[in-house]
Amino acid sequence: MVDLIEKKRDGHELSKEEIRFAIEGYTNGDIPDYQMSALAMAIFFQDMTTDERAELTMAMVQSGDQIDLSAIEGVKVDKHSTGGVGDKTTIALAPLVAAVGVPVAKMSGRGLGHTGGTIDKLEAIPGFSVEITTNQFTELVNKNKLAVVGQTGNLTPADKKLYSLRDVTATVNSIPLIASSIMSKKIASGADAIVLDVKTGSGAFMKELNQSKELAQAMVNIGKSLGRETMAIISDMNQPLGNTIGNALEVKEAIEMLQGEGPDDLRELCLTLGSQMVYLAKQATSIDQARQMLKEAITNGKALEALKVFIEAQNGNSSIVDHPETLPEANYKLDVQAKEAGTVSAIVADKIGTAAMLLGAGRATKDSEIDLAVGIVLHKKIGDYVQEGEAIATLHANKENVSNVIEMVQAAYSFSSGDVDKPTLIYDEIY
Amino acid sequence: MVDLIEKKRDGHELSKEEIRFAIEGYTNGDIPDYQMSALAMAIFFQDMTTDERAELTMAMVQSGDQIDLSAIEGVKVDKHSTGGVGDKTTIALAPLVAAVGVPVAKMSGRGLGHTGGTIDKLEAIPGFSVEITTNQFTELVNKNKLAVVGQTGNLTPADKKLYSLRDVTATVNSIPLIASSIMSKKIASGADAIVLDVKTGSGAFMKELNQSKELAQAMVNIGKSLGRETMAIISDMNQPLGNTIGNALEVKEAIEMLQGEGPDDLRELCLTLGSQMVYLAKQATSIDQARQMLKEAITNGKALEALKVFIEAQNGNSSIVDHPETLPEANYKLDVQAKEAGTVSAIVADKIGTAAMLLGAGRATKDSEIDLAVGIVLHKKIGDYVQEGEAIATLHANKENVSNVIEMVQAAYSFSSGDVDKPTLIYDEIY
Repeated sequence: MVDLIEKKRDGHELSKEEIRFAIEGYTNGDIPDYQMSALAMAIFFQDMTTDERAELTMAMVQSGDQIDLSAIEGVKVDKHSTGGVGDKTTIALAPLVAAVGVPVAKMSGRGLGHTGGTIDKLEAIPGFSVEITTNQFTELVNKNKLAVVGQTGNLTPADKKLYSLRDVTATVNSIPLIASSIMSKKIASGADAIVLDVKTGSGAFMKELNQSKELAQAMVNIGKSLGRETMAIISDMNQPLGNTIGNALEVKEAIEMLQGEGPDDLRELCLTLGSQMVYLAKQATSIDQARQMLKEAITNGKALEALKVFIEAQNGNSSIVDHPETLPEANYKLDVQAKEAGTVSAIVADKIGTAAMLLGAGRATKDSEIDLAVGIVLHKKIGDYVQEGEAIATLHANKENVSNVIEMVQAAYSFSSGDVDKPTLIYDEIY
Repeated sequence: MVDLIEKKRDGHELSKEEIRFAIEGYTNGDIPDYQMSALAMAIFFQDMTTDERAELTMAMVQSGDQIDLSAIEGVKVDKHSTGGVGDKTTIALAPLVAAVGVPVAKMSGRGLGHTGGTIDKLEAIPGFSVEITTNQFTELVNKNKLAVVGQTGNLTPADKKLYSLRDVTATVNSIPLIASSIMSKKIASGADAIVLDVKTGSGAFMKELNQSKELAQAMVNIGKSLGRETMAIISDMNQPLGNTIGNALEVKEAIEMLQGEGPDDLRELCLTLGSQMVYLAKQATSIDQARQMLKEAITNGKALEALKVFIEAQNGNSSIVDHPETLPEANYKLDVQAKEAGTVSAIVADKIGTAAMLLGAGRATKDSEIDLAVGIVLHKKIGDYVQEGEAIATLHANKENVSNVIEMVQAAYSFSSGDVDKPTLIYDEIY
């Protein structure tokens, strides 16, 4: 292992056998943390070639269980977002593409953050359960083209162990390590093809466009090296996506999108990602055709119907689709007023996310309880004009005194006296 | 600690407090190995400023005991060599400078390697003991200007722990880490001034002259930053120093040097290092004057007398000085013959060292027993002409079958058909 660290430290390419040796040894405890952290830091400085990245990814995939989706008919396309504030895309996108015949076999998690994970959000729907067996999961996807299950099995234990180590050794922010971590989870989950939504901007992990592109290209190259059709969208995270942040609030916004309503940015992102998924699943012969199919599924109600069928199949009460007011609702609604007039020039997404978490929408630690009803609704986004004292957002809270959260939301907004363009939503597509 | 690793990773200077925090925390176990190895690798890539290096050195000094030499009169000058094959300089140099009034309060070790450490070599003298009390040590230096004691106390535990970690994480070869490691030991040992002998060439840790100069300058800067007069000599290690490798054999060669005999390179190195020590100890007003004093001490027998007094004071039998044939002697003397004629163009010092260790002159592991009598005497050095079949070296062995050692010594020599210059001995002086 020392020779191997030295080799990477000095800028040489590690062989497949060396990468296997390191990952297998680290997973089973033969290689100690202190050697792996030194290797991770050497990788931070010396990078990895495409071959090395693919091998690292595959070594992490094979460190644990791999989900076998072969009993599901069709090309299984998975979508992954690098994460942002207000990102309820999965909840809208999954029934949307299922409605046009793309099998969506989604394994999801809870996790820490500004709001809950996809599973938490779905649990805002009364009765909804992800506790289904593997057989039920397969049958549901074959029947309805859509099911969501909680994470099962021991997926990519090497990645879990390495990620924990990177987190405490300042080696998180390394393109080859981030890319192989994400891709190992997608490949272990059994995807045939992968559409990546790489966020860029102040609210994203990657703040700079060129970094986001580099990460996207790295993941696409790994996917292709390992025989999975893979592409990436670079999308904006200079402000929260859509208008809602919070679990039930986001479900509601996703329903609106499927009804042909809701904010433009959410709708456009879903159509962009969705058309790539439909195309990779071979349900359309071009991206344009795929987009047309998705628009029709919204117009003719098939997408909304797919959502209802999906909810019913997992014991949820699908009447919330037509009556979203029956979703969990907070006791207090408190407006956040603009402290000055002007055009919104920036909304620091992280601050909005933290504000939502302070209301109880997300977990600060593993053991935190989530309040599914609470969250924030934004009334003004970048480019919108605001009068002094006008409501820029509304807090949905279950406690009365939230003055600190109000201040945080106010602090997240910046205003300009001149005109401000709305930010670009889709910056690039990476193949 | 994560922020601190990240700061160094991104090329920023760590503050005094941050370096203290890291070293203190690591020494007392609050900071785990995996974070320190990541920091060490970040330092490998991002280097440290002079201030950082000095602070790191001082933090390691203060992690354990510090020797107080204030009861010893005069300026205590310590000499340190970065290590090479056949380096018996300390044994000759210590009585040489003591003879002209420089107090030499030497703490020495055993250690692993091609031959034993200075203490092992001294123990080739019948009766000689380094087991003296601190009071005896102080009294002896005040009386005779020279005493050697085994390492006592818990010196630089942070350095010991960090060095062990670096050894298994490919972070040994970093100038700031090497320099602070060496300097912390010297400063904890109580030296007022330090003369460094940094070896360069194929048999040295630093093979390239510019690397050796960089290391030397780094150590000199640390010493000066911490208020110790410090200078370094860059000396040759493209072949073993002197003609002998082995404990009793090296003592014998050191005695010859003090008698005004022995090999030129050993004598010249002792005069160069010694004159710097005498000057730093304020026993001479110029380097030239110091060198003249040392030459006289050899000519008039005072240096040899200082050796005898030193040996007697530590219970050794000083008659070996006049009768070196009474030192431990090996049973077999086996010539190594040149396989071809020509001028010696290279002697790979490491191979000669390993050959000596195979004969039993050094420790391969901590628990190995040393045979003080065995070793190698070189008859030909770089630039000497050799006939085919002529003896290039003689093995002193306590076993008859040493054909593998003979082959190793033969393999260490290269020959050229043309003339070969003798290598430069002193490349530079660094202040």
